[in-house]
Amino acid sequence: MAYFDNSATTKPSENAVTATAFALTECWGNPSSLHSLGTEANNALNKAKKQVSSLLGCQSENFFFTSSGTAANNTAIFGAFEKQKRLGNRIVTTAIEHPSVSEPLKRLEQNGVEVIKINPDKNGKINEDEFFSSINDKTILVSCMAVNNEVGSIMPIPTIRSAVKRAKSPALIHTDCVQAFGKIPLSPNSLGADIITVSAHKIHGPKGIGGIYLKAKNIIKPYMLGGEQESNIFAGTQGMPAILGFGAAAEDAKDIQENSKKVAELKSYLVENIKDIKSVRINSPEDAIPYILNISILGLPSQPIVNFMSEKNILISAGSACKMGHRSPVLTAMNLDSRVIDSAVRISFSRYNTIEEVKLLIEAIKEIDKKYGKG
Amino acid sequence: MAYFDNSATTKPSENAVTATAFALTECWGNPSSLHSLGTEANNALNKAKKQVSSLLGCQSENFFFTSSGTAANNTAIFGAFEKQKRLGNRIVTTAIEHPSVSEPLKRLEQNGVEVIKINPDKNGKINEDEFFSSINDKTILVSCMAVNNEVGSIMPIPTIRSAVKRAKSPALIHTDCVQAFGKIPLSPNSLGADIITVSAHKIHGPKGIGGIYLKAKNIIKPYMLGGEQESNIFAGTQGMPAILGFGAAAEDAKDIQENSKKVAELKSYLVENIKDIKSVRINSPEDAIPYILNISILGLPSQPIVNFMSEKNILISAGSACKMGHRSPVLTAMNLDSRVIDSAVRISFSRYNTIEEVKLLIEAIKEIDKKYGKG
Repeated sequence: MAYFDNSATTKPSENAVTATAFALTECWGNPSSLHSLGTEANNALNKAKKQVSSLLGCQSENFFFTSSGTAANNTAIFGAFEKQKRLGNRIVTTAIEHPSVSEPLKRLEQNGVEVIKINPDKNGKINEDEFFSSINDKTILVSCMAVNNEVGSIMPIPTIRSAVKRAKSPALIHTDCVQAFGKIPLSPNSLGADIITVSAHKIHGPKGIGGIYLKAKNIIKPYMLGGEQESNIFAGTQGMPAILGFGAAAEDAKDIQENSKKVAELKSYLVENIKDIKSVRINSPEDAIPYILNISILGLPSQPIVNFMSEKNILISAGSACKMGHRSPVLTAMNLDSRVIDSAVRISFSRYNTIEEVKLLIEAIKEIDKKYGKG
Repeated sequence: MAYFDNSATTKPSENAVTATAFALTECWGNPSSLHSLGTEANNALNKAKKQVSSLLGCQSENFFFTSSGTAANNTAIFGAFEKQKRLGNRIVTTAIEHPSVSEPLKRLEQNGVEVIKINPDKNGKINEDEFFSSINDKTILVSCMAVNNEVGSIMPIPTIRSAVKRAKSPALIHTDCVQAFGKIPLSPNSLGADIITVSAHKIHGPKGIGGIYLKAKNIIKPYMLGGEQESNIFAGTQGMPAILGFGAAAEDAKDIQENSKKVAELKSYLVENIKDIKSVRINSPEDAIPYILNISILGLPSQPIVNFMSEKNILISAGSACKMGHRSPVLTAMNLDSRVIDSAVRISFSRYNTIEEVKLLIEAIKEIDKKYGKG
């Protein structure tokens, strides 16, 4: 199997599997229990928190596990809004956020909040002038993903801080780093962010666990309420199996530069071999992260392309798994030609992909071009 | 190790471990992905949903995975409130709900909702007259746990429906079944409930997964927003490893009557052997579920009792793990003598406990009585 849908989910690494199994068979106590088994679980929880925080470049005291990237984003958006709502009524974001950001914002909008959504250009990038001029002194939150999940474009997060200052805005800065975490070097300092959200299953950890970095615990109001787990930031008995797997996966992912270089070579090889095919369009900008390449093969719609590949055991996706069956809102916001949108697919790499797999992919693309391609 | 803290968490069953591992090593696709690996994951997800629904006595179309029992309760409370808020402003509940119910209700109360909390009697049971007379035609939600998590008292859920009807109330009926699920026979029909919430890790499934039964999908507004997973009821890529483990654990737990009988014998043996000890007080009512026994050993405070036992590798708890280090709100609401509250501990059984383990526990209780007991 040649798996190129790593932005949808990844195969758990061996160490992640081992760590998850350890939480199921040995270290299965409730970390809130005040007896030996609970203490042991709590120690394992703290170790995993240190492993993930280390990859995120933050102190573990500022990092809290949530049940998914989606739960982290809901906590970020609703939590920041509840805390900040007395200071203003505007939130600035982009038109290409993941549904776990855009849907919470849509609900706030329905409740009367002014949500400014900046459209991307044809490269999936955000015009900084337009973005920053929307931030005013009544803006309470700026939420912008670090890397777009469909085309891989990198957003200008590090420049937001000074724009917020210039506007004399009380805004918190949130960045959804689900597609950036473990793939490009980042930290709260380098990004200038108050809130960062991440997920395990995009970096070879288990599905069902995510996390949130908070510059200070009290900058948001908790969204998931109940017991005092995760310092009251996210209630519910911690999902220990997935958490220990997340810790191991984060440790496994620490050679960010080296992995990125390897993946960049795979992507370059692919691009070099398909860019001159008449029916092929490259939709990702040249300076996108190497892990994501969005292309169109004009002549065949997205899902039939995916199916054609799937039959050859080459797995890619038609846009984001979280928007299955829908027309891509990202490519639409990029204002691409409708023919390009309708035949777009996302190829997403991992450090475990090989050049042989890429060659299979190239052959399949050439075959589709031959059979269905319309340049 | 003699583990008697099964109401805090349980050891995953062998089948649960195997199913979880399968999701990590083989069936690791994203169930929303529209390729072969995604389809395979989606089939496994549906199988697990059927397994859990079967134990809950509902159709799998009415059951939705959430990331924990807490997430299910937050979804139930906030989701029902958002949907029902135009119909009235009162919510009726008890004073002994789990924090994942009482904390969401507290926030609603802070936002102006009238929340009526019925106190239990000295047996941890609810006076039905008082409870039901609080339900009026402006009551939009009744939320009552099926089994209390600290003393095991069984609540009068099946009688709520007629009380709601009598009051001409538009209320939805929610019952937190985290401590009842898999332990007493129940179904939406037998309980007369609109919303039921459950968790995996109390029935030998993995931590980090729960679920919600809804009589109809549209009776609540979703609380966790994002992608369209779980039919839009709970967004976020499903935690597949824990979900497959939950399915297997539910299947393993299906001999409810037989398991209950076994556990009842263990509890009886324990009670028979400690009830005449002068310093011992039994705080659970006689008709509590067999899985939970709350006792006090007057003369030693709760945590030192837990520590004493822990050193002998007998694991029990001082109240609920979700309220660690706090005075039990349940025993306080039961209006027990403060000496009784301060030395209370919870012994919670599972079908895997043995009579030998119970004998060790009895010896330890006798030793504590001898050293510290004050009748």
